[in-house]
Amino acid sequence: MPKHVRHKVRRVAQRGHYDAPTIHAILDAGWVAHVSFADPAGQPFVIPMLYAREGESIYLHGSIASRLMKTVGEGIATCLCVTHVDGLVLARSHFHHSMNYRSVVAFGKAVAVVDPTEKAAIFARFVDALIPGRAAESRPADKNELAATALLRFTIEDASAKVRSGGPKDDPADRDLAVWSGVVPISPHYAEPVAADDAAPGVPVPGSVQRLFATGAEKERAA
Amino acid sequence: MPKHVRHKVRRVAQRGHYDAPTIHAILDAGWVAHVSFADPAGQPFVIPMLYAREGESIYLHGSIASRLMKTVGEGIATCLCVTHVDGLVLARSHFHHSMNYRSVVAFGKAVAVVDPTEKAAIFARFVDALIPGRAAESRPADKNELAATALLRFTIEDASAKVRSGGPKDDPADRDLAVWSGVVPISPHYAEPVAADDAAPGVPVPGSVQRLFATGAEKERAA
Repeated sequence: MPKHVRHKVRRVAQRGHYDAPTIHAILDAGWVAHVSFADPAGQPFVIPMLYAREGESIYLHGSIASRLMKTVGEGIATCLCVTHVDGLVLARSHFHHSMNYRSVVAFGKAVAVVDPTEKAAIFARFVDALIPGRAAESRPADKNELAATALLRFTIEDASAKVRSGGPKDDPADRDLAVWSGVVPISPHYAEPVAADDAAPGVPVPGSVQRLFATGAEKERAA
Repeated sequence: MPKHVRHKVRRVAQRGHYDAPTIHAILDAGWVAHVSFADPAGQPFVIPMLYAREGESIYLHGSIASRLMKTVGEGIATCLCVTHVDGLVLARSHFHHSMNYRSVVAFGKAVAVVDPTEKAAIFARFVDALIPGRAAESRPADKNELAATALLRFTIEDASAKVRSGGPKDDPADRDLAVWSGVVPISPHYAEPVAADDAAPGVPVPGSVQRLFATGAEKERAA
């Protein structure tokens, strides 16, 4: 376990992971990061935000008028968390009920990205983080759109992952209770796409969306 | 919009909601809250935690040895957020890509619950928050289990909900682009239950789990 990590996994230590591949895979499987910071009085805030990762950078975006973007963009200490719920763990006892999940807690600071060319490239990355391949299917941001959007680059200084998987851990003393025990797996389910009210007539559902419904696509995203 | 709310929804103000039924419904549809607080140096932390709601109380639990439980249980300013991802919003332009979601940000403080009878009842509530009806199917916590678990009651002082639903909002100037636009709905999917390796032989999948697979059950949870 690296010494500099601010959030060491102390409870059930074998669930903790500190390697970049594990941390990156969990981050890349998500859409929403919970971003937290404190005001000078110590009042914490936690806000859900879309994000896109590139190396040790996590990009966040918002309106240039957003107070949050201004506050976090000043480079104050920031912490963010991404969590995936993978299953309900049902034990014989109340005490051993749990969830299967994967989560990452990352600490760092954010700076504003201002160069328009760089901003446009990050915009495209956001769209592909929503659904891979979508950036190439849709119109890139123009000058006005780039100017209206604040982009922050949060740099991961340290991070930890926590993963629980597998079945319940019942007490041996409970073995003979006639109570079902096991896991109900949970994963995101994509329903049939709904075209916009003003959708362009005759335009088919694009490749990015079709691939969501291809066998194994959900697993690939989660893996 | 109530004056005392710390997190007013300023960007796209029509997405903001401040009524208890909306806030409670979003909280009750979730499993994991992202709980944030700051240390005395202003360093923020955000940690995913299971929770159960009762009125304006949100219960959190953890090991009595957990630093987090001790820190938050001292009654410091705490903020938590619950978010549900409801769909990918695909527009003709990068700029108008978005997600459909429901989120609640709540501010308050937590105190430890120490009375064993009260703790046992809250334990049961946690199990039913995981999957309704499960508490009655499994063994309640005993004295040792109650003693090993720290329970916190976070009281909501103010909260706001933010909801985006519906299709993309494309620019009129983009109408003629031959780009598919619309929404891919997302919801939690429960897969076939997996019995534990040491499952009691001959015990059928219980009612709580069967109800997850009944038609409309997911909608009821999300509603």
